[in-house]
Amino acid sequence: MKSYRKEIWVNVPKRLAFINITKNVKEALLESKIREGLCLVNSMHISSSVFINDDEQGLHHDFEKWLETMVPHEPLEQYRHNDTGEDNADAHLKRQIFGREVVVAITEGEFDFGPWEQIFYGEFDGRRKKRILVKIIGE
Amino acid sequence: MKSYRKEIWVNVPKRLAFINITKNVKEALLESKIREGLCLVNSMHISSSVFINDDEQGLHHDFEKWLETMVPHEPLEQYRHNDTGEDNADAHLKRQIFGREVVVAITEGEFDFGPWEQIFYGEFDGRRKKRILVKIIGE
Amino acid sequence: MKSYRKEIWVNVPKRLAFINITKNVKEALLESKIREGLCLVNSMHISSSVFINDDEQGLHHDFEKWLETMVPHEPLEQYRHNDTGEDNADAHLKRQIFGREVVVAITEGEFDFGPWEQIFYGEFDGRRKKRILVKIIGE
Repeated sequence: MKSYRKEIWVNVPKRLAFINITKNVKEALLESKIREGLCLVNSMHISSSVFINDDEQGLHHDFEKWLETMVPHEPLEQYRHNDTGEDNADAHLKRQIFGREVVVAITEGEFDFGPWEQIFYGEFDGRRKKRILVKIIGE
Repeated sequence: MKSYRKEIWVNVPKRLAFINITKNVKEALLESKIREGLCLVNSMHISSSVFINDDEQGLHHDFEKWLETMVPHEPLEQYRHNDTGEDNADAHLKRQIFGREVVVAITEGEFDFGPWEQIFYGEFDGRRKKRILVKIIGE
Repeated sequence: MKSYRKEIWVNVPKRLAFINITKNVKEALLESKIREGLCLVNSMHISSSVFINDDEQGLHHDFEKWLETMVPHEPLEQYRHNDTGEDNADAHLKRQIFGREVVVAITEGEFDFGPWEQIFYGEFDGRRKKRILVKIIGE
């Protein structure tokens, strides 16, 4: 069994944004030389997500609007977590809805994707450096 | 390390439905001859989910009603994604809540399930052919 | 390839609570002697979740309050699943939002975590014994 590990660094200038990281994750797969296996991609932070969906700007606008309706950032005082001096309680909750990670199959050296699958980093508390972990195991 | 790959095809006649695919995934495990490992089951589409819950019709009714309250299909104009000519923005969002995939442990040649765990395909934009990927790695 | 399996038992005295199981899962990793691989941690029940977030009591209060707003436990009659004699339809739905499982990378014999990542069991229908599965594969 082979394994490969890589970190992808991001620094999102806005509080909330969706970044297509498919190309970066594919680079890691190429470097790994693994042809059959599984690839885990997860946020190493607890106020952001990694997920798979469509690369369409209108949809990302819908994601943002819907998440903000479900879990409003303000008023900050509605969340006990913000009593600690933080202002990101909503980001922790948005991450719970969109999830932490994806696991992707590797077949014949490539990601075994359907036609529209793209990997995104969902940032809900940006304006600082963050890391995404790629871990690949297989042969 | 061994690996095995199989596609399960579905064509759901309704826009939204939950299909029990446990039997199909167990067939793939049997074919794989893998006795210890991990099994990834994911939708290859971005408007549907694979998840594990209870095979109870009343609950599936509750799932549908709740998802429709959280992310209504109509009016279509409330979603920017639908400006592209699509009518499935809600399906992309419902999929975000229910998730893309499950990873299941394999122990002594069987899925290492609790007593009530069943694998479902959650379709949120049906009436067309779609694919589910099963990827198994192990020994 | 090596594999290791362990069950963690919990009995939460309240209906809804969040339990930090990071220490228990780390014990399983130590016992496995696996140094590179993937670790699956999942609830073996369908009315509870395993997820990764922050170990902060205020945030857990926010989680509980938000989940209860999204999916109220009462009135019981609003859910068809409860017509079967159960009272836990809301727990099945809360589990859908928070998810079933996490997959964690293992690098050099340790969980490859960001600085704040902690593994939690989210119980939504407690006051009974339940099991969490840890399955580790790798080398």
